[in-house]
Amino acid sequence: MQFEVIARCGQARRGRLTLAHGSVETPVFMPVGTYGTVKAMAPNELEGLGAEIVLGNTFHLWLRPGIEVVAAHGGLHRFMGWPRPILTDSGGFQIFSLGPLRKVQEEGVAFASPVDGDRLMLTPELSIEIQRAFDADVVMVFDERTPYPASRDETAQSTELSLRWAARCKNAHAGNANALFGIVQGGMFEDLRERSLGALENIGFDGYAIGGLSVGEPKDEMRRIEAFIAPRLPEHRPRYLMGVGTPEDIVEAVGNGIDMFDCVLPTRNARNGWLYTRYGDIKIRNARHRTDTGPLDAACACYTCRHFSRAYLNHLQRANEILGARLATIHNLHYYLTLLAELREAIAAGTLDRYTGQFKADRARVIEF
Amino acid sequence: MQFEVIARCGQARRGRLTLAHGSVETPVFMPVGTYGTVKAMAPNELEGLGAEIVLGNTFHLWLRPGIEVVAAHGGLHRFMGWPRPILTDSGGFQIFSLGPLRKVQEEGVAFASPVDGDRLMLTPELSIEIQRAFDADVVMVFDERTPYPASRDETAQSTELSLRWAARCKNAHAGNANALFGIVQGGMFEDLRERSLGALENIGFDGYAIGGLSVGEPKDEMRRIEAFIAPRLPEHRPRYLMGVGTPEDIVEAVGNGIDMFDCVLPTRNARNGWLYTRYGDIKIRNARHRTDTGPLDAACACYTCRHFSRAYLNHLQRANEILGARLATIHNLHYYLTLLAELREAIAAGTLDRYTGQFKADRARVIEF
Repeated sequence: MQFEVIARCGQARRGRLTLAHGSVETPVFMPVGTYGTVKAMAPNELEGLGAEIVLGNTFHLWLRPGIEVVAAHGGLHRFMGWPRPILTDSGGFQIFSLGPLRKVQEEGVAFASPVDGDRLMLTPELSIEIQRAFDADVVMVFDERTPYPASRDETAQSTELSLRWAARCKNAHAGNANALFGIVQGGMFEDLRERSLGALENIGFDGYAIGGLSVGEPKDEMRRIEAFIAPRLPEHRPRYLMGVGTPEDIVEAVGNGIDMFDCVLPTRNARNGWLYTRYGDIKIRNARHRTDTGPLDAACACYTCRHFSRAYLNHLQRANEILGARLATIHNLHYYLTLLAELREAIAAGTLDRYTGQFKADRARVIEF
Repeated sequence: MQFEVIARCGQARRGRLTLAHGSVETPVFMPVGTYGTVKAMAPNELEGLGAEIVLGNTFHLWLRPGIEVVAAHGGLHRFMGWPRPILTDSGGFQIFSLGPLRKVQEEGVAFASPVDGDRLMLTPELSIEIQRAFDADVVMVFDERTPYPASRDETAQSTELSLRWAARCKNAHAGNANALFGIVQGGMFEDLRERSLGALENIGFDGYAIGGLSVGEPKDEMRRIEAFIAPRLPEHRPRYLMGVGTPEDIVEAVGNGIDMFDCVLPTRNARNGWLYTRYGDIKIRNARHRTDTGPLDAACACYTCRHFSRAYLNHLQRANEILGARLATIHNLHYYLTLLAELREAIAAGTLDRYTGQFKADRARVIEF
């Protein structure tokens, strides 16, 4: 893995990440491909939209279709027909979403499979082994997601456990030429965030992620921690803010120097008819769109906006047609990927502040919802 | 509308149908777009698959999104983003599927809307008015679907009612430059089929369809009636066998001189993991495909077979991923459209018998299911 910062604008960085399966221009948004497919999209569409890297979910793919099936294809790329880079999460986030069904031990996390109830255990070593079998370009360490809210003591204990697991992941990753990223935890406590980051740097990783945000905390708490820790992440390594977020969150975080993002919002919201535009968000199922022959966004160049009316999108969503989910997903991913492309241009041109100001003013117009 | 027979081979015909929105090479298969979308497909994919005409359902589109919404777009073509020809059915077939919810009168059919329970009535005149508002290239007459089984008396009465409605449709269609097709009814009675055809010819239509088949009767009954009536349809007009059928049904009917087909089988079966290949059908959800890294059909040139494994298709179907429905639909439509293209070539080359023999031998191999 190589990472090069090409331009800066304030704390923001315009970079290029070179991975085993290709290079990625940063800041970058990674569409989420939970079960080996970015929901409703085919790989050729994702390429057409300009996606350069997607995220795969270790936990879900481990349970279905299983390691051996993906490994029989030589990895996740050929299995899902996506030749470009893939980042896989560690499975930790999903396991900690199981609630009382899981039990955290020093060794790892025991849980009952939500697919068939089997008793399973995921450990740092197993997570790394699975991600290696998937041939992920970027492997994430297995860590505990600190709950929110959590006391300082609980957070400190959880952070230390994650650090011991991070060291085991580093050992287990030995011999794998792909990249390994550490994840900074520490909850809502700035000193614990610093403690986590320092210890991870001592272990040494190819990139550093911020975990444990966007887990239910108020937005200003999230922004406070992100603004605190982002600029402290190593200067010459990619910085990844996990699971975030809205267009506004991303613009803010790019300003704080974040290079990589993933989030289910554009794809999940698309399937529910929630569409992003430069001038605010639109709920296309709303009756006001029922007879509207105009496009969703006249200024948008995506396939959906160039070919179909709001009335047609409204109709497809109400009739629960697959094409409705597809056209909405195309539009939302186009919105996110174009937003990131514009942010990259603005950083390179040294005009990020102006871009951000215009972005906020446009989005605040919210002509309709 | 123009129709030209370019070549013949036995009773089979290779033709070209010129409609308001483009020309169609026959024999042709028309994918079914119930709610203004061929399920799971985007218009650009349909064009890429070589589809030249699609079918729209008057009944469904009348209820959702309603005539006024489609009409506001100037018709169904712009509403659904499909610039090529469209044939619309009359709504009769769907109404007669409502069972006890509908009441047949001389004037038309009264029924309760399955969407919201509203009391509605569809008449020959209204059906033609709706299809005109949709700007369908081919408009179908509104007729009664004779139930199966039915006595000779019941069938005769139903056939006569359909003929009176056909005459009303012809009158209502006056002034519409698009084509109007009559529908031969008469159930399983050859003399009633002849009576229906003769009366329709006296009224005079641009094309003639065979209705009331594939409604629950045994396959040999269907083939008997089809083989009887198909060659009796007017020589210089397109002949359309409605709602049929399997690949075997279509090959048989092409041999009997049929020019046009529609059926939900390739699209509906795709969503359930039932896939058509030259060497028999495959149920991709079957566990035997779980770890198979080979393509669905190594000889198939479709996007699905060129890029994905059986294991991946199996996984997507089991995980109920939208992409699973999409890739299966692409393959099945490619199969049907390629089959029709090969039949057209064989007719033009005068080798239809040889082609049909090879087709049956290949399909009978059914290597697996």
